[in-house]
Amino acid sequence: MKFCVFEWQGGTHLGKLSGNGDTVDRLDLAADGNGVAALIGRDVPGTLDTIPIGDVKICAPIPRPHRNIFCVGKNYHEHAHEFANSGFDSSAAKGAVPEAPIVFSKLPETVVPDGAAIKMDSSVTTAVDYEAELGVIIGKSGRNISKEDALSHVWGYTVINDVTARDLQGKHSQWLIGKSQDTFCPMGPVAVTADEIDLGDTTVKCWVNGELRQDSNTSLLIFDVPTIIAAISNGITLMPGDVIATGTPAGVGIGFKPPKYLTPGDNVKVEIAGIGTLENPVEAI
Amino acid sequence: MKFCVFEWQGGTHLGKLSGNGDTVDRLDLAADGNGVAALIGRDVPGTLDTIPIGDVKICAPIPRPHRNIFCVGKNYHEHAHEFANSGFDSSAAKGAVPEAPIVFSKLPETVVPDGAAIKMDSSVTTAVDYEAELGVIIGKSGRNISKEDALSHVWGYTVINDVTARDLQGKHSQWLIGKSQDTFCPMGPVAVTADEIDLGDTTVKCWVNGELRQDSNTSLLIFDVPTIIAAISNGITLMPGDVIATGTPAGVGIGFKPPKYLTPGDNVKVEIAGIGTLENPVEAI
Repeated sequence: MKFCVFEWQGGTHLGKLSGNGDTVDRLDLAADGNGVAALIGRDVPGTLDTIPIGDVKICAPIPRPHRNIFCVGKNYHEHAHEFANSGFDSSAAKGAVPEAPIVFSKLPETVVPDGAAIKMDSSVTTAVDYEAELGVIIGKSGRNISKEDALSHVWGYTVINDVTARDLQGKHSQWLIGKSQDTFCPMGPVAVTADEIDLGDTTVKCWVNGELRQDSNTSLLIFDVPTIIAAISNGITLMPGDVIATGTPAGVGIGFKPPKYLTPGDNVKVEIAGIGTLENPVEAI
Repeated sequence: MKFCVFEWQGGTHLGKLSGNGDTVDRLDLAADGNGVAALIGRDVPGTLDTIPIGDVKICAPIPRPHRNIFCVGKNYHEHAHEFANSGFDSSAAKGAVPEAPIVFSKLPETVVPDGAAIKMDSSVTTAVDYEAELGVIIGKSGRNISKEDALSHVWGYTVINDVTARDLQGKHSQWLIGKSQDTFCPMGPVAVTADEIDLGDTTVKCWVNGELRQDSNTSLLIFDVPTIIAAISNGITLMPGDVIATGTPAGVGIGFKPPKYLTPGDNVKVEIAGIGTLENPVEAI
């Protein structure tokens, strides 16, 4: 099943998309910042209206996560090498390919929906980059979760663009500031339940202005989703509604020589098979 | 003024401490996870009761921050060197003393109050360390805040013990996991308004089992509070209720040879002049 959050007739609602995506069922459950996470652990609410998709404005599926988004760095082999060679890898002491998942966070307020602008402040950063990523939405609380049990803690998946200010990422050693610039987490347009995704074969792609830049598959993750969940929950209680961005494949802007950074007027499109397409313009502020 | 959150007669309340700290005024304002942050931008509410301090149970001043706590690493010279030499500094590419503030985060749910146990899970970490730190509580929203304006965005201060699993901090390169173990952010017992603290001369001390381990002064911060606020708000909107842990001075466990890690049964006491004393036992789970 595919779920979303949308604005319609002056309100914000939870929705379930039809099979072909032409319509959205407005569900009988209040929407808040947790978005689709409100559906975790309950039956699908009843339908109040069925609305043509063109009549609604899509919000991020979790408009305001309840705490920072967990993110994994350098989690595809080719990307780990391109990043290690970029000059911005401030935590590369142990070589290009990490021995354990590299986990950092993005602020909850970085989230913007499909279609919203990624805002570039040239007084702050001149090296803005895209990162197409599979986002995991946790559905069941747990601590010290084993790899074997990990997928039972997943409610669903979404599409994330882990936008990054490379200059700030390098400058501050730890990545929070470079990753948490306002508007730097496009998410959506929808979230799908876990049963819709084959983690062993799901394509992850990104285009900038129509040029295919990233083209990979979740089968190529260095640390797969169960390993990531086990690592994060090692001493830390994961909670329903937590979001984990699983890392980006090769083809980000700093992978090119010279780097292909985003600039105002660009259009970034991230597509994950079985979930959907997340498209955001880049604007100057 | 000194404010706190406390439990009394089955409820959780906001309080204002008397000058000598013997009593607490229960304030006419509901307490929630934001704790003393509810007082930001408003007059001090009226007093409902005045209660002997011994009759209440103190909670953390912000029991559940609204998003991850911002933390600064390697922000006192002597500590920057002791950490760089410890073998756990996974982001030391640029030398011991950083060129820009190193900013990472701790999950909101790590917060525990004065007196609560720091819980050690020996299946997860065997290198738990203490870090006495001045905590800043933001009172006014802002983005691209200048150093000159920065202190006008501060509502107050508290005491934080930025407990750290050194082994996980090193293993995962980025510090989120090592810093966010459950119970790893003792905070309090109180928060004070900004006017109570002279950032140019405030002592920060830590004892373990009565042995003085850290003894420094906020005047020795590499990046002072205005510089930290300017750095974090560079492209990021700071919000009322945000908490920033400003870094720890020399004398942490890994500064000793061999390291003096915390073990179950230990007692850690952090004291910041003008705020108070935060004391927590260490327990095995």
